Amino acid sequence: MKIGIIGTGRYIPSIVTTNEAFLQQEFLGPDGRRFELDNTVIIEKFKAITGIEERRYAEPELKTSDMGYLAAEKAIADAGIDREALDYIIFAQNFGDMSPGKTQGDTLPSLATRVKHLLKIKNPKCVAYDLIFGCPGWIEGVIQATAFIKSGMAKNCLVIGGETLSRVTDPYDRDSMIFSDGAGAAIIGQSRDSEEILAHSSLTFAGEEAYYLHFDRTNRAEGCEDTRYIKMLGRKIYEFACIHVPKAMASTLADSGVDINQVKKIFIHQANEKMDEAIVERFYRIYGKKIPGNVMPMSIHKLGNSSVATIPTLYDLVLQGELPGHQVNKGDVLLFASVGAGMNINAIVYRA
Amino acid sequence: MKIGIIGTGRYIPSIVTTNEAFLQQEFLGPDGRRFELDNTVIIEKFKAITGIEERRYAEPELKTSDMGYLAAEKAIADAGIDREALDYIIFAQNFGDMSPGKTQGDTLPSLATRVKHLLKIKNPKCVAYDLIFGCPGWIEGVIQATAFIKSGMAKNCLVIGGETLSRVTDPYDRDSMIFSDGAGAAIIGQSRDSEEILAHSSLTFAGEEAYYLHFDRTNRAEGCEDTRYIKMLGRKIYEFACIHVPKAMASTLADSGVDINQVKKIFIHQANEKMDEAIVERFYRIYGKKIPGNVMPMSIHKLGNSSVATIPTLYDLVLQGELPGHQVNKGDVLLFASVGAGMNINAIVYRA
Repeated sequence: MKIGIIGTGRYIPSIVTTNEAFLQQEFLGPDGRRFELDNTVIIEKFKAITGIEERRYAEPELKTSDMGYLAAEKAIADAGIDREALDYIIFAQNFGDMSPGKTQGDTLPSLATRVKHLLKIKNPKCVAYDLIFGCPGWIEGVIQATAFIKSGMAKNCLVIGGETLSRVTDPYDRDSMIFSDGAGAAIIGQSRDSEEILAHSSLTFAGEEAYYLHFDRTNRAEGCEDTRYIKMLGRKIYEFACIHVPKAMASTLADSGVDINQVKKIFIHQANEKMDEAIVERFYRIYGKKIPGNVMPMSIHKLGNSSVATIPTLYDLVLQGELPGHQVNKGDVLLFASVGAGMNINAIVYRA
Repeated sequence: MKIGIIGTGRYIPSIVTTNEAFLQQEFLGPDGRRFELDNTVIIEKFKAITGIEERRYAEPELKTSDMGYLAAEKAIADAGIDREALDYIIFAQNFGDMSPGKTQGDTLPSLATRVKHLLKIKNPKCVAYDLIFGCPGWIEGVIQATAFIKSGMAKNCLVIGGETLSRVTDPYDRDSMIFSDGAGAAIIGQSRDSEEILAHSSLTFAGEEAYYLHFDRTNRAEGCEDTRYIKMLGRKIYEFACIHVPKAMASTLADSGVDINQVKKIFIHQANEKMDEAIVERFYRIYGKKIPGNVMPMSIHKLGNSSVATIPTLYDLVLQGELPGHQVNKGDVLLFASVGAGMNINAIVYRA
């Protein structure tokens, strides 16, 4: 039995925040001191490295589960399946439902249950759970869905990735400009055509890497002692990703038996443009090749890094023909790859 | 291939809190009003219904992931396996790592990653993720581990359930006396003897039931508007559980092909003694039988309801011969069943 992605959907929030919106923001280092550079220069450098020009933030009335629901409705419609035929709703997230201006995430009930509630699915055999696996959570959800289908426990699984990172970021930390909000969803089920997950792999590095992304207090010395925000050791993550992600991609490709020349597109977690390019360059270097033109669709310029939501959103954009210059044709071999908190890495070799 | 539980471990915190400790506590209804009854009467009634005489709270220096780690070390030793041979660490939890006196849960990185870090496991192929599925999370983790093993993705999985509910409860709510802290763990792997998961099932009811357990503000009118605590519609949950859990247990038993008379013990989520008894009575009533003597080991009297931790802790206590009057012999057929936030229900028919 071939298992594939039989429907996709996304929710991109409507609130656009440009880089210019940060010109007046007070940025501080982890030591609480101001940078010597002017914000104009900080933002210019930021854009040169990450590629981010603007990002989307969730509307105040929406939480992560609401965005996940909106993406899920589209994925169900796209797959053309009866929602009551879903065996699983897997919601990849990391911070629960956050309300604007609040610090406490809400996971009671799980976001997957909230989505099932909003979808008005009655079938109690549709099992709803949340998965925490850092940014690679959505790909991991697809892998878990594959296991359920292979083992005979499921036929159709809805896998959602959603996050409102704008509500867990420290405004005084310039790294916060990276993060954004959104949700993507897909239905994983028995393939109807050529689509097939050909190979997959998952890794967790939990030595000192475990805390490269962690929760910590604001950079502002007089800020609240109790409130925690996403903090990252950017340089360490960059080096880690450049060493380990290309290897993981190559090893997954080897498992699939597909030749490197057959790979048409690489859908990589939209973490940071320079890092993503470095990863893909190093991946091709393993085969003694240069990175082919147009192999890497990118949405980071306009959407920022929405964690678990980047890959399903990007894939849906390309499938719907809404990312100029990129398309996926039936039978194309694709690579999905992600890296993030955990530190987790995963990859899927996929035939569209 | 037979898949079974090949090792177990638990961490029961050392801080004992008796019912008497609540005598001076101000209890308020959801409307913010004091009860007409005296605390002595409230606590007597509480004990008569829930069976709880005392409960354990985590030591201030320990968080959920620390307790999970301590339980995991024991499960690994009990299984006698090399920790580097673990393919998965699945941590069932619902609120992240909570610090005493703080309101924000920490899931960056996942608790499973924190355990892997503490276990000093180097193998990156040991995949660590958290699972949110309410109180039935630990059983659900065992079911997910089964899927990974069946589908060829894993051989040995560490499944942990841990929670510090004492840090997410409203002291003004008398329901808070139910909740406690702890962690349990098991290794799921290829059976070495008679042990085998014979059947399993999982259900999510997400109609109005979705919010029977939810996050809400304190019962104290002048309390903090922003802080959320576990709140439950106790009566609704009781009725829901009595209708749906016996049916789920019976349907799973039917799937296993095992006769009701062969069931030796029922390990049920330690939610509330009267509710647990009512569930098991109704389960036997389906077969026109009375509940057999000594079929239901209970730890709630001394340990309270530690959510995901109750079943692995209880099972480990019985296996280690530390629950007087109860034992499990090789080949005994057991039933595991849980119900909780989601609302989720699951059950496993197991041969020891």
